[in-house]
Amino acid sequence: MYDIIAKKRDGGTLTREELAFAVNGYVAGEVPDYQMSALLMAIYLRGMTDEETAVLTDVMAHSGDMVDLSAIEGIKADKHSTGGVGDKTTLVIAPIVAACGVKIAKMSGRGLGHTGGTIDKMEAVPGTRTSLTQEEFFKQVNEIGISVIGQSGQIAVADKKMYALRDVTATVGCIPLIASSIMSKKLAAGSDAILLDVTMGDGAFMKDLDSAIELARQMVAIGTTHGRKVAALITDMDKPLGRNIGNSLEVAESMAVLQGKGPADLTEVCLQLATNMLILAGKGDAATCRKMAQQVIADGSAFKKCCQMFAAQGGEVSVLEDPERFRKAKYSYELTAQSDGYIYKNDVEKIGNASVLLGAGRIKKEDTIDFAAGITMHRKLGDFVKTGESICTFYADDEALFAAAEEMYRGGLVIKSEPPKLPPLIYARVTADGVERF
Amino acid sequence: MYDIIAKKRDGGTLTREELAFAVNGYVAGEVPDYQMSALLMAIYLRGMTDEETAVLTDVMAHSGDMVDLSAIEGIKADKHSTGGVGDKTTLVIAPIVAACGVKIAKMSGRGLGHTGGTIDKMEAVPGTRTSLTQEEFFKQVNEIGISVIGQSGQIAVADKKMYALRDVTATVGCIPLIASSIMSKKLAAGSDAILLDVTMGDGAFMKDLDSAIELARQMVAIGTTHGRKVAALITDMDKPLGRNIGNSLEVAESMAVLQGKGPADLTEVCLQLATNMLILAGKGDAATCRKMAQQVIADGSAFKKCCQMFAAQGGEVSVLEDPERFRKAKYSYELTAQSDGYIYKNDVEKIGNASVLLGAGRIKKEDTIDFAAGITMHRKLGDFVKTGESICTFYADDEALFAAAEEMYRGGLVIKSEPPKLPPLIYARVTADGVERF
Repeated sequence: MYDIIAKKRDGGTLTREELAFAVNGYVAGEVPDYQMSALLMAIYLRGMTDEETAVLTDVMAHSGDMVDLSAIEGIKADKHSTGGVGDKTTLVIAPIVAACGVKIAKMSGRGLGHTGGTIDKMEAVPGTRTSLTQEEFFKQVNEIGISVIGQSGQIAVADKKMYALRDVTATVGCIPLIASSIMSKKLAAGSDAILLDVTMGDGAFMKDLDSAIELARQMVAIGTTHGRKVAALITDMDKPLGRNIGNSLEVAESMAVLQGKGPADLTEVCLQLATNMLILAGKGDAATCRKMAQQVIADGSAFKKCCQMFAAQGGEVSVLEDPERFRKAKYSYELTAQSDGYIYKNDVEKIGNASVLLGAGRIKKEDTIDFAAGITMHRKLGDFVKTGESICTFYADDEALFAAAEEMYRGGLVIKSEPPKLPPLIYARVTADGVERF
Repeated sequence: MYDIIAKKRDGGTLTREELAFAVNGYVAGEVPDYQMSALLMAIYLRGMTDEETAVLTDVMAHSGDMVDLSAIEGIKADKHSTGGVGDKTTLVIAPIVAACGVKIAKMSGRGLGHTGGTIDKMEAVPGTRTSLTQEEFFKQVNEIGISVIGQSGQIAVADKKMYALRDVTATVGCIPLIASSIMSKKLAAGSDAILLDVTMGDGAFMKDLDSAIELARQMVAIGTTHGRKVAALITDMDKPLGRNIGNSLEVAESMAVLQGKGPADLTEVCLQLATNMLILAGKGDAATCRKMAQQVIADGSAFKKCCQMFAAQGGEVSVLEDPERFRKAKYSYELTAQSDGYIYKNDVEKIGNASVLLGAGRIKKEDTIDFAAGITMHRKLGDFVKTGESICTFYADDEALFAAAEEMYRGGLVIKSEPPKLPPLIYARVTADGVERF
């Protein structure tokens, strides 16, 4: 291990044997934390070649179970987001894609810190099981074409241990390490077509377009090397998608999109993501795939597919059909404008943290979630607001939580007489063929 | 700690508060190994400013006892070597300098790996105590002007823990970390004048002159910043000093130098080191100090001072007066030349390792030492040898050890028809005023 650290420290290129020795030794407890953290810092500062990153990813993927989806017929599509606030796209696009005849056998994560997770949102629907046996999972996908479940602890076990170490040694923000972390789980999860949603903005890992494109490029390269169809969209994270943040609030908003009555920004991003998943799954060109996605919304089949999935996993579908039936938070609070003007800045990380303070998310992994808690935004970045008008509504079961959440939210809020420059929804598209900037 | 690692990772300059937080937290067990190793790798790859290195050294020095030598009258001089094979200079120059009226209240180390240590050599003299109470130590230096004892475990405790971590995380060979490690111990040990012997060569930390000069420059700067008189000589480590390697063998050779009958190379290096210590201690210019050193050899007072020191610490002085009285190894073995020619290469690390295999040193800290074991070299680098002639004699208490030692020694030995280019004894002198290359 010493020689491996020294080689990377001096800018060398690690071989498959060396990377496997380090990663497998670390998982087995034979390589101590302090040697792995020295290696990770050396990788952070010296970088890795594309070939090294691909090999590291492969070694990490094989450190746990490699899910074999061959028992499910047809093309299986997956999607990954590098994290967002109010990001409920999976709940929308998975049913759309499944309704178009592409199989979704997907594992998703839980929320931590200012970003949420699909599994928490699903569990906001009472009765929903997010932990199925492999047999149940395969059977459901074969029968109705879709299942989304929690990630098994046995997927890419090296990544779990390495990520925890990176988190405390300032080695998280390193493109080859982020790429191998994400792609090791995606390769292990077994799908043929993988669409990556690389979020960009102040609250995201990637703060600028060049870094986001480079991360996307590396992940597409890794997936392609391993025989998968992979593409990435670089999407904006400086503004939450839609108006709702919080678990049942986001489910309600997702159902609105599936019923053709959702917010324009969320609807557009979901259509673009779904279109690209369908392209990767071989369903045709961009125009054809977009029409297909619009059609399954218009004819109600995408929403029906979503209800089928929840029903198959034990969820009470009545709340999807009528979100008013969701349990409501005991208290609500209007956060109002203190001056006239445009919302000039509205820090997305602070919005996410405010929702966590209301009970909608977790600070530590062990924290429990209040599914009814959250925020509905009435005025978003770029909107004009008058003094005293509500900017957003907070929901919580404890009135005492509003003060801290308001302080957090206002801490990222700037109102000015001039409108801000608005970011685009989608910055670029990265495929194995190259980069397309919008 | 996370923020401190991230700052150095991004090339920032750490403040005193940040360095103290990291080092003191590490000593207290509050900062875990894996965070310290990430910081050390970031320092390795990002470097440190002179100011940062000086502050780190100060923090490390204060992590343990700061020895207060003010109870000893006059100027106190110290010396440090970055390690050599057959390096017995301390045993020669400490008595010379003390005989010239400069106090030596010195702590020395033990040998590990291919390099030896002064304390082991002293203990080869039967009865010698190398562990004195502070009271005994001060009293002896006040009475006879000299004492050399083992390093207390309470000196620069941060360095001990950090060095052990660097040793297993490939972060040893970093000039600011080497400089702060050495100087933290020297500052804590309390002497006013500190001469540094920076060894250079294939078996040394510093492989080239520029690196050695940079290490010397940083150490001199640290000491000067802290109000000490410091200078450094860059000496060669590609050739052992003198002919003997092994503890009682090296004591014998040192006594020969003190009696004016030692090998020329060892005598010259010792004179230069002693001269520079005397200059730092304010005894005059180079010519005056060199004459002074030669005089105390010529008149026997340096040898007498050495005997006084050993006697005061319980050692049997008879072996110093007549090294034939040292216990002899049970067996000896002549390693002979297999061809005619010049000794063209004679790897010093392999010579050191051969002596360890004979029992003269330690591989692990817990190993015991055979004081009588070792090597006497009859033909050194550049010497001509005829087939069948003895190149060196091995000494050991077990004949079975000779084969492995011979293999090790011959592994670094090259005999050629042309003579090699010989390195100089001393490459350069570094003081607070600048660098003088020879």
